[in-house]
Amino acid sequence: MKKIRVGIVGYGNLGKGTEYAIEHTNDMTLTGVFTRRDPKSINVRTHVPVYCMEQAGQMRDKIDVMILCGGSANDLPRQTVELAQYFNVVDSFDTHAKIPEHFEAVNKVSSDNNKISIISAGWDPGMFSLMRLYGQAVLPNGKDYTFWGPGVSQGHSDAIRRIDGVIDARQYTIPSEAALKYVRSGAQPELSVREKHTRECYVVAKEGADLTAIETEIKNMPNYFADYDTAVHFISKEELDRNHSGIPHGGVVLRTGATGENLKNKHVVEYCLSLDSNPEFTSGVLVACARAAFRMNCEGMSGCKTLFDIAPSYMHPEDGKYLRKNLL
Amino acid sequence: MKKIRVGIVGYGNLGKGTEYAIEHTNDMTLTGVFTRRDPKSINVRTHVPVYCMEQAGQMRDKIDVMILCGGSANDLPRQTVELAQYFNVVDSFDTHAKIPEHFEAVNKVSSDNNKISIISAGWDPGMFSLMRLYGQAVLPNGKDYTFWGPGVSQGHSDAIRRIDGVIDARQYTIPSEAALKYVRSGAQPELSVREKHTRECYVVAKEGADLTAIETEIKNMPNYFADYDTAVHFISKEELDRNHSGIPHGGVVLRTGATGENLKNKHVVEYCLSLDSNPEFTSGVLVACARAAFRMNCEGMSGCKTLFDIAPSYMHPEDGKYLRKNLL
Repeated sequence: MKKIRVGIVGYGNLGKGTEYAIEHTNDMTLTGVFTRRDPKSINVRTHVPVYCMEQAGQMRDKIDVMILCGGSANDLPRQTVELAQYFNVVDSFDTHAKIPEHFEAVNKVSSDNNKISIISAGWDPGMFSLMRLYGQAVLPNGKDYTFWGPGVSQGHSDAIRRIDGVIDARQYTIPSEAALKYVRSGAQPELSVREKHTRECYVVAKEGADLTAIETEIKNMPNYFADYDTAVHFISKEELDRNHSGIPHGGVVLRTGATGENLKNKHVVEYCLSLDSNPEFTSGVLVACARAAFRMNCEGMSGCKTLFDIAPSYMHPEDGKYLRKNLL
Repeated sequence: MKKIRVGIVGYGNLGKGTEYAIEHTNDMTLTGVFTRRDPKSINVRTHVPVYCMEQAGQMRDKIDVMILCGGSANDLPRQTVELAQYFNVVDSFDTHAKIPEHFEAVNKVSSDNNKISIISAGWDPGMFSLMRLYGQAVLPNGKDYTFWGPGVSQGHSDAIRRIDGVIDARQYTIPSEAALKYVRSGAQPELSVREKHTRECYVVAKEGADLTAIETEIKNMPNYFADYDTAVHFISKEELDRNHSGIPHGGVVLRTGATGENLKNKHVVEYCLSLDSNPEFTSGVLVACARAAFRMNCEGMSGCKTLFDIAPSYMHPEDGKYLRKNLL
C-alpha cells in the first residue's frame, strides 16, 4: 500500500512532535519540513529535506497532506489559507473566538481547489470539543463543564516574563479539586472563574528586583490573573530549569445530565486528559486528522472540516471491518 | 421546522427510556410504539398509538426513523433486518461477537432500500467503542483498557436466578480500584480477568434452601463467576427490592501511550461513565443516532453504519455554524 506523504510546516515543539507522531504510523511518511527561516538553519532530526515556504507550491504533486505547526496568532491565519490552494491541510488553530472567521477563509480556498482542510485539531479545540458535542447530543438535559490543567499555560507564562525585573517564569493552571468533586456528584453548580481554577507561578527575578512589586503586578494583572487565586513562588533559574522544563497539560470535560421519571436518574460523563507533553499529544491529533483529510479527499470530499465533521473511522489506520470486529 | 418522526419498537426499559429521551429533544416527535404483544395490553405513558409489529410496513410514510428497543439475543437479529426494508433504523445490538454478521445482514437490506441503519448504538458497544477508536488513532503507541461498573449485570443476575433454591438476585460488577490506579499511573500492565473486576451478588433464597450449596454453585459457575473473586450476600426479598431495584452502570475506557524522544512522555486518556440508569443513558445515544440516521439519509447516504461512521455533528441538533462558534 502506498503511504500518505506528509509535509510539516514549522519546526518548533509542535512540528517536532508531529515528526515523532508520523514515525508511529505505518501508513504515513514524512516528505519534508517547510520553514519561514533559512532552511540551512534547521536541523531536522530525521534528516528529511527542508524547504523554504515559497517552495511549497512546487511540491503539490509530492505531498498529500500538509500539517501546519505554526502559531495561531500570526502564522496560521495566513499560512493555512495560502497552502489550502495546493494541498489538503491540517492545523491546530486555537483562538476560539476567531474560529468561525478562520473557517470561512479556509473553506473558500479548499472548496475552490477541491481539497480538504481540517482546522482546530488538537485537544481544546479538538478532543475536548468533541466530548462537549457528544455529551450534549446524548444528554440534552444537562450541563457542560471544562476544567484545564494541571498544566503549563504558555500565554500566562509569557505575560509574567514581560514584567519588569522578571528573567523567566512558568505558570501552572490547576483545576480546583473541590469544584471537580462537586460537579462529579451530579449537582449542576454555577461556578465562578475563581472557583474553577487556581494559578501557580514560578518566577525567576533579577537580583535586587522588588519581589513584592512583581508579585502584586502578577496578581492584579487583568484577564490573566486578577480573577483567580494566584500563588507566586520565587525560585532560582537552576530550579526552574530542573523542575519546570516540561510542558505538561490536560484537563477534564464533564457532562452531567438527568433522565427519566421526574428526572430522578443522574448521569456523569467525564473525559480526562493527563499529558506529559501538550505539543506531542496535539501532534497525535494532527496526524490522525491528516489521515482523515487524505482519505476524505480521495473519496471526493472537499472544503473545510473540523473534528465535528469527520466520521471517526477516517482517523484510524484500519478499515471498517477491522474496527467493527475489534473495537466496537 | 418539521420534526423528525420516530417510532419505538418494544416497550421495555429501553423503549420507555427512549420515550423520555425524545421528550428532551426539540426536533423529534414520537409517532407510535410497536409491539409483538397485543397492542391493547400496552399502556404507553405519553398515550401515543400502539401498533402491532405487522402494521409497521403500512406506516412507512408516517415514520422517519424506527428505534428498535428489543433484546440482542432474540429480537434485533430479526427485527432490525425486517424493518430496515421500510425505515431508517437504529438499534443497540450488543452481542459483540456477532456484530460483523448483524452488520452484513442489515447493510444489505438498508442499501437495497436506500435507507440508513445504525447498529450497536449505546455505550458498550457505542460511546466506549468510540473512545477506543479515538484513543488508538491519536496515541498509536499505547494500550487500551476497558473497565465496567460499578453496575448491575442483567446476564449475571439471570444466571444466579436460574440456580435451584434462588428466588431473586442482583449481581454487581465492580472494577478494581487498585487495577484502575495502576493503569492511570501510565504503566501498561497486563491484567488478568480476576485482577480487573470483582463480582458482588445479592441473593434471595427460598426458605430452607442450602445456602452453602448456592454460594458454591455461584462461585464456580464457568464463564460467569469462576474467573472472578466473587462475594455472595444472602438478603431478604424486601431488602433486595428496597436497595437494589435500580439499574445503574458505567465504567471507564483508558488509553495510555508514550510519545517523543525515547518515548519519555506519557499520556493518559480516560473516559468515564457513571449512570444511574443503564437503559436511559443508552436511550440517549439511540435518539441522537436516530437524528443522525435521518439527516444522513436526507443527504442521500444509505447502508448500515455504526458510531464509527457518523460525523459527530449529525448527532447534535444544532448546525455546523452554531457548533463551531459555541462548542469548538
